Amino acid sequence: MALSAGVHSVLATPFRADESLDEASLHTLIDYYVAAGVAGVLVLGVLGEADKLSDAERERVQAGALAQAAGRVQVAVGVSAASTALTAERAVAAERAGASAVMVAPPAGSVAGPVLRDHFRRIGERLSIPVVVQDLPAVGGVLMPVQFLADLAGELPPGSVVKLEDPPTPRKTAALREAAPALPVFGGLGGTALLHELAAGSAGTMTGSALPHVLVEIVAAHRAGEPERAKRVYEAALPLLLFEAQPVIGLGLRKEILRRRGAIADATVRQPSPPVDEQSLAALGELLEAAEVPA
Amino acid sequence: MALSAGVHSVLATPFRADESLDEASLHTLIDYYVAAGVAGVLVLGVLGEADKLSDAERERVQAGALAQAAGRVQVAVGVSAASTALTAERAVAAERAGASAVMVAPPAGSVAGPVLRDHFRRIGERLSIPVVVQDLPAVGGVLMPVQFLADLAGELPPGSVVKLEDPPTPRKTAALREAAPALPVFGGLGGTALLHELAAGSAGTMTGSALPHVLVEIVAAHRAGEPERAKRVYEAALPLLLFEAQPVIGLGLRKEILRRRGAIADATVRQPSPPVDEQSLAALGELLEAAEVPA
Amino acid sequence: MALSAGVHSVLATPFRADESLDEASLHTLIDYYVAAGVAGVLVLGVLGEADKLSDAERERVQAGALAQAAGRVQVAVGVSAASTALTAERAVAAERAGASAVMVAPPAGSVAGPVLRDHFRRIGERLSIPVVVQDLPAVGGVLMPVQFLADLAGELPPGSVVKLEDPPTPRKTAALREAAPALPVFGGLGGTALLHELAAGSAGTMTGSALPHVLVEIVAAHRAGEPERAKRVYEAALPLLLFEAQPVIGLGLRKEILRRRGAIADATVRQPSPPVDEQSLAALGELLEAAEVPA
Amino acid sequence: MALSAGVHSVLATPFRADESLDEASLHTLIDYYVAAGVAGVLVLGVLGEADKLSDAERERVQAGALAQAAGRVQVAVGVSAASTALTAERAVAAERAGASAVMVAPPAGSVAGPVLRDHFRRIGERLSIPVVVQDLPAVGGVLMPVQFLADLAGELPPGSVVKLEDPPTPRKTAALREAAPALPVFGGLGGTALLHELAAGSAGTMTGSALPHVLVEIVAAHRAGEPERAKRVYEAALPLLLFEAQPVIGLGLRKEILRRRGAIADATVRQPSPPVDEQSLAALGELLEAAEVPA
Repeated sequence: MALSAGVHSVLATPFRADESLDEASLHTLIDYYVAAGVAGVLVLGVLGEADKLSDAERERVQAGALAQAAGRVQVAVGVSAASTALTAERAVAAERAGASAVMVAPPAGSVAGPVLRDHFRRIGERLSIPVVVQDLPAVGGVLMPVQFLADLAGELPPGSVVKLEDPPTPRKTAALREAAPALPVFGGLGGTALLHELAAGSAGTMTGSALPHVLVEIVAAHRAGEPERAKRVYEAALPLLLFEAQPVIGLGLRKEILRRRGAIADATVRQPSPPVDEQSLAALGELLEAAEVPA
Repeated sequence: MALSAGVHSVLATPFRADESLDEASLHTLIDYYVAAGVAGVLVLGVLGEADKLSDAERERVQAGALAQAAGRVQVAVGVSAASTALTAERAVAAERAGASAVMVAPPAGSVAGPVLRDHFRRIGERLSIPVVVQDLPAVGGVLMPVQFLADLAGELPPGSVVKLEDPPTPRKTAALREAAPALPVFGGLGGTALLHELAAGSAGTMTGSALPHVLVEIVAAHRAGEPERAKRVYEAALPLLLFEAQPVIGLGLRKEILRRRGAIADATVRQPSPPVDEQSLAALGELLEAAEVPA
Repeated sequence: MALSAGVHSVLATPFRADESLDEASLHTLIDYYVAAGVAGVLVLGVLGEADKLSDAERERVQAGALAQAAGRVQVAVGVSAASTALTAERAVAAERAGASAVMVAPPAGSVAGPVLRDHFRRIGERLSIPVVVQDLPAVGGVLMPVQFLADLAGELPPGSVVKLEDPPTPRKTAALREAAPALPVFGGLGGTALLHELAAGSAGTMTGSALPHVLVEIVAAHRAGEPERAKRVYEAALPLLLFEAQPVIGLGLRKEILRRRGAIADATVRQPSPPVDEQSLAALGELLEAAEVPA
Repeated sequence: MALSAGVHSVLATPFRADESLDEASLHTLIDYYVAAGVAGVLVLGVLGEADKLSDAERERVQAGALAQAAGRVQVAVGVSAASTALTAERAVAAERAGASAVMVAPPAGSVAGPVLRDHFRRIGERLSIPVVVQDLPAVGGVLMPVQFLADLAGELPPGSVVKLEDPPTPRKTAALREAAPALPVFGGLGGTALLHELAAGSAGTMTGSALPHVLVEIVAAHRAGEPERAKRVYEAALPLLLFEAQPVIGLGLRKEILRRRGAIADATVRQPSPPVDEQSLAALGELLEAAEVPA
């Protein structure tokens, strides 16, 4: 089944204060996103600290998310790894467990070319669910030109999409939509360019914002043909969307938002990770107080 | 003389369609920023395409800016180079020509340590005007920890400051203010975090936004003890501030804004540089129509 | 027990042509290195394609290596991971399984400072075996200054060492030996600078060369006070040491050497990985024919 | 006129102890390389600290080199800059001054594609002398695939070549020779892979070794159809070639060799630059004593 257009929220992985996996919070977290009206959730992405987990913990997150979602929303699973073999193994396991899609980023140090194309092709041929190709050069350093991405589409299972996070994203979204009209493109990067990505032809966004209801409303307004409403909601939310998307401390800020909203019990980030500073916590508090979705 | 608190605008360098230096536009550009009420302008920074100019062109930009500013605002000059010798030569020439300050970034590939500290010290001892230390790891890749910057202050002429562009900037601003209370810190990065940088103790911003009146009003409101007004203006401007600050096409977008506002005759960027796409130009047009500073 | 001075060989992980783990070849590989007279072997390092393995495969490699070594040589295990929690979990498991030491590299994106220091400290306090701190900025991008490394020594179990691969290595080896005389330093980088590292005070090398007998003889000559012999062997081996250490294809070349020498059954590298070209295979053949350790 | 096959030595720029340009040493340096039998010299490359010089100093180096070479060897001039305009201006000036060729590297941050191709095309159409395309991703970070380089050939003046420094160089040399048989390829990287580059089809090397007579002999032996002699000389020289090519301190080591051999008066490197350490100087002394070209 294809991925629904709209908002797919990338989930943080909840930990207790001792950094152990908090599956109870994973459940409430999923309920939080479902209640916000998202089309799907994505576990074990960059924001989910996937590379900080053991394989056993990954499996618990995957199983917990699928069980708690219980078909209410689509569940995609990040399976990126340094080898084709390990990525494919994880992808096949995710499909068997019931995932709606798997997300695959190019291994760090790859170069857009035939070897990388084979990586995606070999993974794709093991699957019947869609692949989300993650185009995020800031992590891993791999630049994938528009034509390379467009060509990949032919190698992947039906319904596969690109999660485009190579800024400026509106420009590349428009170019990729033109080069491969049948390939859906989703935005990312915290939704900070969501309005412009939608205008450029994106099908929605897959991102880790702790404010999913805002993203849902923006996409809904856009799809309902109400650009003014989409713009109003986007602009009202932008100060907070931008603040929570800061480098280094962004994950800690988002977990703090989720904690304050009752979605998770504890804002702990796995170490090593610099703590969120007092200055930023205070600013976050003010932003949260002020930020309400306009009626 | 010390650099004034407030807004110092980093100037684009205007070119004609044939990419030759357009000194007439440099004059109107300076008038545009002076009219916006900035405390100073800074020529030959990253946004000024300084490394795309010959030494002779640099000198023409410096001379033209100083003559046109004519003491109405402070004029700082970017003098960064790969060697201490060349940086110092440029800095001394800028001081002789009448610059209020010089900006120096660490040479690409430097490591924060005694060799880099000597670089700044040797430049500083040739000068009586302040040095603006540019802390922009995204260009050049040099990480300068808070303590390294705090220690630099003792090596530099009186009134020297840091232009802090190592995100998250509010966090580092607060930390540097605490480590070196006598060292003024300015923000940058297009003013996209200006409100939070001011809250963290910044003295203002030195940045290349094409919307200087907005930045001026935010700083003025903050300094007047009107945080609600500062916040309102900042949040109203954020969609456009963020849009014009995009990577890759940001310079072209800002030159287009300046052209539309009559500040320069032509939006040409020196090649090689990817063109601004239609999608982004259209979005810019809509943003500009909508964007007005709230009364 | 402390790590012995001398040569600790970093092992490739053998795969069959279908990229599955080849444990039989792991056994012959260990015998190959033991026969060469190394002091130890290190599994699951960068050359071991550790990040291309599942946790279950890692465990099989660790168990297979320990069983086959059977106390004939020391066995160190690479346990680097993006989180303190996962690194510590792997390290504790390695100690329990009987490893002589664990190797830990700083997580990618870390900055030398208190947060990273805590990472090493927390791992160290869970262990009684030594930690090998891997200083390899080319992978992960983390620069660790001499003083940071020297200070780390106080946080780690007795006998911990640094595997120094931040070129130029002779210079940093000498500086670290001076800053922390009690902290043993080993070289790496394929042994291409081994002679100079020994002169600078290194205790030996931990590296992935497929030619361990050469490295063993160089270190033995050096320790026997026969510098001329050490130099002669090093210089005779350098053409091949340098050739097998090439970027991108180095792993494939080393596996090919090991295959030709009967140490493993197949030279397969896990995908995605560019194939070794004909040109380089031919050159390798000629080098191998010519290369004999001088009597 | 085309560039001669063989060795083109990249020249260091000599400075006095006070870091001022030492033109007298530039003259003796050129004589040193001419006496070694090189086909050409190249000034203002990376090793020449070109980006540490003012435009006026660049012009003095170019004029001094051309005058002193006096037609005895070809003289190529590095003209790389961040803009097409400045690069072309420098290139045209070099041709007028009598240079045999100009070297152009892609501006840092470029992406192999139409915009970069235009950069080279626009420079090339202003020239009648050949362009040396520098393919050195370690500086500037630009990856240029084989096909991109092959296609560039059609945009450049007759006789243009590639200076290929994207390791592993033998592999890429062979691939580029196959993709564009009419495009000569030279090696670089200190000649440390010269033997293998020649075997892969290179026309020689353009590099900054302080030991040009060795490189000349290797190429001569190769072209004379005496592979055994080429191999013997290469392998005898490798310990020193590799040592002088070390990162960070390589330039200082080469200047020290040149000083000891009387080619320049002073080994000063422009600051900021870490000093060569005692350990490395001592090792250099031993290597120089031992290193003699086999008769």
